[in-house]
Amino acid sequence: MSALPRPFNPPARVLMGPGPSDVPPRILAALARPTVGHLDPSFIQLMDEVKALLQMAFMTGNDLTLPVSGPGSAGMETCFVNLLEPGDTAIVAVNGVFGQRMKENVERAGAGAVLVEVEWGHPVDPAKVEAALKAHPEARLLAFVHAETSTGVESDAETLCALARKYDALSVVDCVTSLGGIPVRVDAWGADAVYSGSQKCLSCVPGLSPVTFSPRAVQRIRGRNRKVQSWFMDLNLVMGYWGAGAKRAYHHTAPINALYALHESLLMLAEEGLEKAWARHLRLHLALRAGIEAMGLSFLADESCRLPQLNAVRVPEGIDEASVRTQLLERFGIELGAGLGPLAGKIWRIGLMGASASASNVLLCLGALESTLAGMKAPIHVGAALPAAMAKI
Amino acid sequence: MSALPRPFNPPARVLMGPGPSDVPPRILAALARPTVGHLDPSFIQLMDEVKALLQMAFMTGNDLTLPVSGPGSAGMETCFVNLLEPGDTAIVAVNGVFGQRMKENVERAGAGAVLVEVEWGHPVDPAKVEAALKAHPEARLLAFVHAETSTGVESDAETLCALARKYDALSVVDCVTSLGGIPVRVDAWGADAVYSGSQKCLSCVPGLSPVTFSPRAVQRIRGRNRKVQSWFMDLNLVMGYWGAGAKRAYHHTAPINALYALHESLLMLAEEGLEKAWARHLRLHLALRAGIEAMGLSFLADESCRLPQLNAVRVPEGIDEASVRTQLLERFGIELGAGLGPLAGKIWRIGLMGASASASNVLLCLGALESTLAGMKAPIHVGAALPAAMAKI
Repeated sequence: MSALPRPFNPPARVLMGPGPSDVPPRILAALARPTVGHLDPSFIQLMDEVKALLQMAFMTGNDLTLPVSGPGSAGMETCFVNLLEPGDTAIVAVNGVFGQRMKENVERAGAGAVLVEVEWGHPVDPAKVEAALKAHPEARLLAFVHAETSTGVESDAETLCALARKYDALSVVDCVTSLGGIPVRVDAWGADAVYSGSQKCLSCVPGLSPVTFSPRAVQRIRGRNRKVQSWFMDLNLVMGYWGAGAKRAYHHTAPINALYALHESLLMLAEEGLEKAWARHLRLHLALRAGIEAMGLSFLADESCRLPQLNAVRVPEGIDEASVRTQLLERFGIELGAGLGPLAGKIWRIGLMGASASASNVLLCLGALESTLAGMKAPIHVGAALPAAMAKI
Repeated sequence: MSALPRPFNPPARVLMGPGPSDVPPRILAALARPTVGHLDPSFIQLMDEVKALLQMAFMTGNDLTLPVSGPGSAGMETCFVNLLEPGDTAIVAVNGVFGQRMKENVERAGAGAVLVEVEWGHPVDPAKVEAALKAHPEARLLAFVHAETSTGVESDAETLCALARKYDALSVVDCVTSLGGIPVRVDAWGADAVYSGSQKCLSCVPGLSPVTFSPRAVQRIRGRNRKVQSWFMDLNLVMGYWGAGAKRAYHHTAPINALYALHESLLMLAEEGLEKAWARHLRLHLALRAGIEAMGLSFLADESCRLPQLNAVRVPEGIDEASVRTQLLERFGIELGAGLGPLAGKIWRIGLMGASASASNVLLCLGALESTLAGMKAPIHVGAALPAAMAKI
């Protein structure tokens, strides 16, 4: 190398995009504690606690509950490669980017994907799903996204999981953006495989994917005819390390420090309480919404299926959305998310996830957005957003 | 949950096992800096610097050089699933645990593995490898482990990579334990795919796997007939995020903070200089070795192929090796590694990797080992180890 780079000192940011969300100092401090070995007795105890805390967050008694040592996409793939065998059929509901990614995963596992599509910005349609389940009695699983990060839409997980059971299929549910922000009731839903991410409503650093599997799913995994195509993600092997009991068999070296951080973030969630965390996300969403609407802007998703933690806001006619995000980043340090796929240029995605779901962030975001749009002569009402939001906080 | 767990405060440890190694405070401090977004302009610059630093560490000009967002096992699998297609043949040299894992990866990618085995504790035999390449002209790649973490043995990567080229096969080289500790000359070897880990001689936290691919390997990946079976590990997609240029396409959310830490650890390696880092590992190995031999203990691997950073030391007759490790951990906070597979109970694995390769650690380990073994009435010489080691430091 010609000249060595300097140590990296990140700029000050307020993370209000689709994740990562702001990571509280307490979690960063846990992350930086000295590394111990992945078979250290103290670390085994940490693993047991992480498992119990994840069971609390997922509202499940599932024994097979653990954080996959990779990002949400690795958690997603862990579900599909363990539950599917070549030649299987899976019904995949697609109403955004992550449903599409599920389809890719199904096909790469050698299975056939039957798609149940709806327009982006709408929830998965249970009637269409039931029709597909009826038409494909051979389907071994139903996959859908609970909280579509690309559109800010919630689908009815309880109804969809019940349909899967009715037609004797396993359910795979993407709860990357929902866990910790809105109710994720794994046992009450009867969901069979659920994956999430550390960097959304848990406010932990990115890189881990909490997953949980029902006894029915575990039976499927244990009774496979063929080895799981991924050695790294093979839960039959991972269970030897994360399973119950003091004797842990080495599978791969766990990301020790990231697990310290996840432990701390789950502890913070437990201290606040799930219900209170959901209520906080909802309250601040309603405040943001009041401000957004007072400004004259509107949401992509209908109120009936709108996620509090991921606000997809339509870009006003004639406004260059990327320029707005750049100004927010450069002038205020605020990160918002862009639209993906067919929604590129049409929406902003404003995240209120985990620690980012705070009254200060709502006011800051509304103020910065209003002043930026006003500066660009966008057709908005000036001066109404902050009082409207304050009335809801 | 009945009662909430307490925040985790790890015990003080000296990590002298097969990894993770001691993580310097400077790297832990980098790890804990505030999280920014994975598409933040400042983070894109960090990614560029990480890539350049990895090219320095791997001694390569390969453009496709990046850290996989998972542990070494994910890096290993990334190599195989991208380079192999179903029905391909791969020659896999097996002289320890990680050669066996390579075989698993090859088979799960739908390819056939031709094994070239040698007894554990010995290096891969180039003559046997050449015979296999001759007998299997259809073989598309040769896979071997440069530094076997399970036995402490180095194989001759330069000769083996040259053999692969001679028979028109790609070479896949496991450098998990070698990178930063002994020479890894990717371009000089003509290696095609090389993977490593963050938590060994780089002394970073576990969870990342640096990889590098030659233009020949990239051509193979770009020209595949069939999609890579893993969406998460598909380099055709990952290149869109890690590739050259300012425009980065979202693939998965990168483990931001872990990459801060990797950046800092590579910077420390660059500041020390590769040659000096290798010399330090060698010098401290020779000191440890002098002490081990003065005590009357011996090494598993012959001197000609012995890794300085992973010392496989034979357990004296009649001594319960696990009890020794437990005493070292409980009385001194020192973590040593156990033997794996056929070597369980027969060896200790003493790591001198990265920051753990220090004069203090050598003395501490020898002193603790000597006093523990003496307390168990093991047949060792007492009092000779420390002076012998000091003479070499």
